[in-house]
Amino acid sequence: VQEDGSIATLVNGVASTVVSAADRGLQYGDGLFETITCVDGEPRWLGLHLQRLQRGCERLGLRFDALETLHHEICSLSQGRARCIVKVILTRGLATVRGYRPMGNEAPTRIVSCHDWPQAGPGLVRAPGVQTPGIRIGVSEVRLGENPLLAGLKHLNRLEQVLAQRALGDLGLDEALMCSSAGSVICAISANVFLVDDNGVFTPAVDLCGIAGVMRRLVLDTAAAAGRPITVRSVSVDELAYVKEMFLTNVRLGLQTVRWLNGRELRQDGEARRLRDLMYAT
Amino acid sequence: VQEDGSIATLVNGVASTVVSAADRGLQYGDGLFETITCVDGEPRWLGLHLQRLQRGCERLGLRFDALETLHHEICSLSQGRARCIVKVILTRGLATVRGYRPMGNEAPTRIVSCHDWPQAGPGLVRAPGVQTPGIRIGVSEVRLGENPLLAGLKHLNRLEQVLAQRALGDLGLDEALMCSSAGSVICAISANVFLVDDNGVFTPAVDLCGIAGVMRRLVLDTAAAAGRPITVRSVSVDELAYVKEMFLTNVRLGLQTVRWLNGRELRQDGEARRLRDLMYAT
Repeated sequence: VQEDGSIATLVNGVASTVVSAADRGLQYGDGLFETITCVDGEPRWLGLHLQRLQRGCERLGLRFDALETLHHEICSLSQGRARCIVKVILTRGLATVRGYRPMGNEAPTRIVSCHDWPQAGPGLVRAPGVQTPGIRIGVSEVRLGENPLLAGLKHLNRLEQVLAQRALGDLGLDEALMCSSAGSVICAISANVFLVDDNGVFTPAVDLCGIAGVMRRLVLDTAAAAGRPITVRSVSVDELAYVKEMFLTNVRLGLQTVRWLNGRELRQDGEARRLRDLMYAT
Repeated sequence: VQEDGSIATLVNGVASTVVSAADRGLQYGDGLFETITCVDGEPRWLGLHLQRLQRGCERLGLRFDALETLHHEICSLSQGRARCIVKVILTRGLATVRGYRPMGNEAPTRIVSCHDWPQAGPGLVRAPGVQTPGIRIGVSEVRLGENPLLAGLKHLNRLEQVLAQRALGDLGLDEALMCSSAGSVICAISANVFLVDDNGVFTPAVDLCGIAGVMRRLVLDTAAAAGRPITVRSVSVDELAYVKEMFLTNVRLGLQTVRWLNGRELRQDGEARRLRDLMYAT
C-alpha cells in the first residue's frame, strides 16, 4: 500500500500517483468517477460501470475514446486479487487556459487506482458480506441542490456528500438519508435507498439530483424480470413514517437492510432478502 | 510559461506542477479557490480574498493555519510583474482512506499559481481596462442547484459553470446570466451582476447559490459609504424586462457594463460609471 492509500495507481496508463495541478478535475471537479468492486480477480458489473461513465461523458461533453484501454487497465489492476476496489477517475484533462470554458480539444485524464476492500469500521464501511447487527439511519440536514443536467451522474462535485458525512458523526448514525433542496428523499450519502410500505417497494427518482447507482439498476432490473417491478418516483419525507422496511444499495454493500429509521425499528430482510435471493439465483 | 499554462506554481510551498491523485480536491472537489489580480507587483484586495477563503474553511471544516505563509507565497509570485493573476487552490488534503468522510486530521494542500493576465479573446476574457464595444448577455439554460451551506463560497464544485460556459458558444453571447433551480437570477457565469431599474440599483442575494465576489463586496461597500446603498434581494427573470442598465463585476473586469440583454440595448455607463468613479476616487 502506497502513501496515498492505494495499492497501485495508473495515470493515463503509466504507474504514477500524481496528476497536474492544472487538471480540470482538480480546478473545477470537471470529471466523473466509478467505484468498481472486484472479486476473484474479476471486476463485477463492469459493463454497467462503463456504460454509466460513457453516458456521463456524453452529458458533460467529454471526448473519451479510450474505453477499451480503460477496460484493460481495470482488469489488469484487479487481476490476482481475491477482493479489491478499483476506482476510476476520468477528468476533462488539462486546463491550458484559465477559466471554466472547455476548449474542446482537451485530452481526458484517466486515473485508475486499486484499493484494499475496506475492513469493518465506522459507518457502513464494513467487511464484505457481513450483515451488521443494525444500521441506524436518520435524515441529514445537508440537502442536495437540484440540477437535471448533472443528476444521475457520478461526477466529481461531491461537496454535499462530504459535508453530510462530516455531520454524520455528531448524529450517532451509520448513514443518513439526503433530501433535495425541495424536500424530497433522494438517497443515502453513499448508497441508493429502497423503501417498503403497505403498497410495495419503491425508490426515489434521481432525475433532479442523486446518483443512478449500478446496484440500484441491478435491483430494479431483477425485480422487473421477476414480474414485480419496483416503483421509481418522488418520495416525501412525510412518507418515512409509513415505511416498514428499508434497504440501501451500492456495489460494495449489495442490499443492506436498515434496522433503525429515525430511531424506529424496521422489519428485517423481507423484500431485501427476496430480492437478494433473486439476484444470487440469476 | 509552463506546459500547464502557469508561469510558476507552488504546491505546499515547493515549486511543482503536480499534486497527489488521491487529493480530496480532485476526488470530491473538496476545497476552495481564489483568483487574485496583481498589479505592479501587488496583489489587489488580498485581505478580502483571504477573508473569504477563511470563511470558506470554517464552513467546510477545513483546518487551515498557514494563512501567513499563503499570504507570503502570493506576494512572492506577484512580485516584479506589471500584471498577473495568482490563483490559490486550497483543498482538504490527501484522502488516505477512500470515501467522502473527512478524517479530521488531513493537512490541507495549498496550490498557488501565477498566470499571465488574459489577452483579449472570446467572451469576457479581455485585456485589462479595455471597455469592449458591447457585451451581449442572455439567460443560460444551465441552472444552479440551491444549497445554503455552500452558497457564497468559491469552492471547487464548478461543473454548473463549466456546462454553462460550454453552452455559451452556441448562443453567440459573451456571457450568460445563471438562474437558480427555483428560477431566480443569481449571477453571470464568471461574474456577479448588478441591475438598474426605475427604483435604483439592485443585485441578487447569494445565500442559496452563487459566489459572493470580492468586487461585488467592494461595489456594495462603496455605494453604502456614499450614502446610496444597493439593494440585495431575490431577483426574478421577469424583472429583466424592466432593467435599464446592467453591469458585471469581478476582480479582473472591475465593473463591466452590459450592452445587450436578450438582444435589447441597455443604457451605457450610468450607475456603473458613477460607482466606478467613486471607487477610483477612494
